[in-house]
Formats: sequence, structure tokens, C-alpha cells
Amino acid sequence: MEDNVVPLDFWPSLFGMRVRIALAEKGVEYESKEENLSDKSPLLPEMNPVHKMIPVLIHNGKPITESLIILQYIDDVWHDKSPLLPSDPCNRSQAKFWADFIGKKIYSIGKRVMTGEGEAKEVAKKELIECLKTLEGELGDKLYFGDETVGFVEVALVPFYALFYSYETCGNFSIDAECPKLVAWGKRGMEIESISKSLPDPEKIYSFTLQLKQRFGI
Amino acid sequence: MEDNVVPLDFWPSLFGMRVRIALAEKGVEYESKEENLSDKSPLLPEMNPVHKMIPVLIHNGKPITESLIILQYIDDVWHDKSPLLPSDPCNRSQAKFWADFIGKKIYSIGKRVMTGEGEAKEVAKKELIECLKTLEGELGDKLYFGDETVGFVEVALVPFYALFYSYETCGNFSIDAECPKLVAWGKRGMEIESISKSLPDPEKIYSFTLQLKQRFGI
Repeated sequence: MEDNVVPLDFWPSLFGMRVRIALAEKGVEYESKEENLSDKSPLLPEMNPVHKMIPVLIHNGKPITESLIILQYIDDVWHDKSPLLPSDPCNRSQAKFWADFIGKKIYSIGKRVMTGEGEAKEVAKKELIECLKTLEGELGDKLYFGDETVGFVEVALVPFYALFYSYETCGNFSIDAECPKLVAWGKRGMEIESISKSLPDPEKIYSFTLQLKQRFGI
Repeated sequence: MEDNVVPLDFWPSLFGMRVRIALAEKGVEYESKEENLSDKSPLLPEMNPVHKMIPVLIHNGKPITESLIILQYIDDVWHDKSPLLPSDPCNRSQAKFWADFIGKKIYSIGKRVMTGEGEAKEVAKKELIECLKTLEGELGDKLYFGDETVGFVEVALVPFYALFYSYETCGNFSIDAECPKLVAWGKRGMEIESISKSLPDPEKIYSFTLQLKQRFGI
């Protein structure tokens, strides 16, 4: 049976970007359905009845949800090419740990940098830098988190690199001044086709952020 | 090399219980170190420098953290006995999805049932029942979430069953009246040795909850 791969996606979604990169890394052909989040299609709650959120990966009719679970699914199913998770159980756990850390911390702190005002924004900026420095410490002098090749942590983290411009512009600070190795890592990622073709232009994301702020007053 | 397995644990921890059950299911021998959370040992931040939280599984000197990541590690390393995750990638994703749902939803909602007052408590009770009904719907008429045997979702969820008594007593309501199939599932779990020996007495957990409330005024 030929694979039928349909991601439900939304172009500025960090979690949608993860799925795009993983599929591109594996060389899987797919046809996305772009969801309009202010007017969701009936397909979305049908495929993700609990959370009703993108991304969903519909593979041969069956839905897989939650971006990190989707990445592991993609790695399980298309295991012959570009492994995302290491084979050693301890290294696998490490990669999952960092991906979990990124989702738990950077997403919500970054949002506060973009939407907060005054003191709240300053606190969020400090927290964001602290988190990014923790990640930079883990990266060390390696090319990638998994060492020589793009892996699970890259796919989980690099979409946030596309938001660095928004963070910096909203927060009026320079991430490069604080975390030069991490920014170099992001630039290195952007030279890889599976990543560069899956991430929107950072300025376009910033414009979208401004629209959201105006529309919802956040 | 003989396996050296040291969980850092704390007896009323739901997440610690998960690790205990998984190790018991696999028949792995271990010697726990009980952490005193108000006076943490130097070992804890050394083994989990980012979050400084239990549970940590130290296996042959290497630390693994985050309960669901630890469960997957245990399943990877001791793969010959009592598989926790199904082998089919789609079913694996489903099991991970529900475990993720449990951690994201029930933990924080349950805390609000135990610590909230007045209207806030009533809202939390409604939300908790809604979540438990969602889980009951997924269980359906199966014996276990994975069907015939204890699996990943059982290990993730059954520690919360030990808290049902606390939820009910703090919230003055009956979970059995709302979710009889889920309660029957919990009772069935308690007949399994790996589970019953890993969970503290529900009344002891309730006393501990009261102590916490008095001490921290929550």
C-alpha cells in the first residue's frame, strides 16, 4: 500500500514546523492541509477529539497527535533513513529530556517575552536567556545536540530559532550577544534543506505575532 | 556487568510510583534512595541539575529523569519481560498520547480539587470528572487500556487511583458514581502485585496532603 501522509498544519505553528522538518528529513512525501485556527475544519476535531489542535499527522487514515509523539512515530515508521533518536537507550532518554524541556519552558517563556509589558517582560527575557544558556551548555562545542548529525533535539528546537527575531524585536535585546554558540547552531541548521524549507521567514512570523497582539489585545 | 539500579524517590510522589511499578513489572531489583524534599540530598541536583526533582533513575551511575521518559527507558533496556509499550507504532503513539494527557491534565486539576475552596473547587471537580470520563471512554469495556495486559497507560495512570480517596474526601464527591468503569479498572489494578506493592495506602496519602495544606497554607 502506498503511504498516504496528511499533516494538519498551520504555517506559523512551531509544533507544525517540527513535523514538517521530520518528514523532510525522512524524505516522506506529503500533502498538508492548512487549518484556519479561527475557523477550524470539521476534520480537526474528528482527528484530534481531545485537544482539537494541530499538528495532527494522518497516516493512512489514522491520526497521530502531539508533536513529540508524532516525531517518534515518524522515526519508528520510517526507520531506514536519517534516524532522529539515537539507538542507545540512555542517549535516547537524554534527547527526549531536552525536547521535553524545550516544550515545557521555551514556548511559554517566549510567549511572555512577546506579549508582556514592563517588569513582566524583563523577567521573561531573563528566564528565556537562562533557558537558552542551559541549552547552549548542553550543546557545548558539538555541531549538533546529537553530535555530528541533525537529530531529535534539532527538530524539536530549531523552529524556535525562527522565532528568535520575534523575541529579540519584541524584547529589544540580542540573543546572539548572550548565546553566540546557540545562534551559530541555528545558522548551521538553516543551511540544511529539510530545515530551511520547513521554516517560515522570521519577519513573516513577527508580522503574524503583531497581528495576533492587535487582534486579541495581548 | 551486574545492573545497579537506584531510583531517587519520595513515597507520596505519583511520578515516583510510576517508576516503582515499571521496575516491579520488569522484575528489576533496585535499592531506592528516599529524598527528603524539604532538605534535598546533594545527589539530587547532581543527578538532575536542570529540574532538581525526583524521580530520577540512576542506572549503572547514569541518571535518567522525567517519569514517562524513565518508563520508556525501562521498557527499552529490559525489553524481554512485560512490554509496556505496544510494538505497533500507531498503538505506541496512542499509549504515549494518553500518558501525556494524564500528566498534563489530571495532576494539576486534581491539585486544585484538593487545595481549592468554594467555586474554584467546584470548577476543578467538574474538570476532573470530565477528564476521568474521557479516560473511561478510551478504556471502554476493555480490561486494560492496552487491552488484555497492564501497559504504559496503566503505569502512568494507576498512581492517580491511589489519590482518588484524597480527591473524593477533599471534594466531597464520589468518583465511583461518575466513572464506575474506571474505578473498577483501578480495583483490578490493585490485584496485581507490581501495582499494589508500589502504591502507598490512600489514607496515608490523604494524611500527607492535609499536612502539606497546613504547612504551606494551601
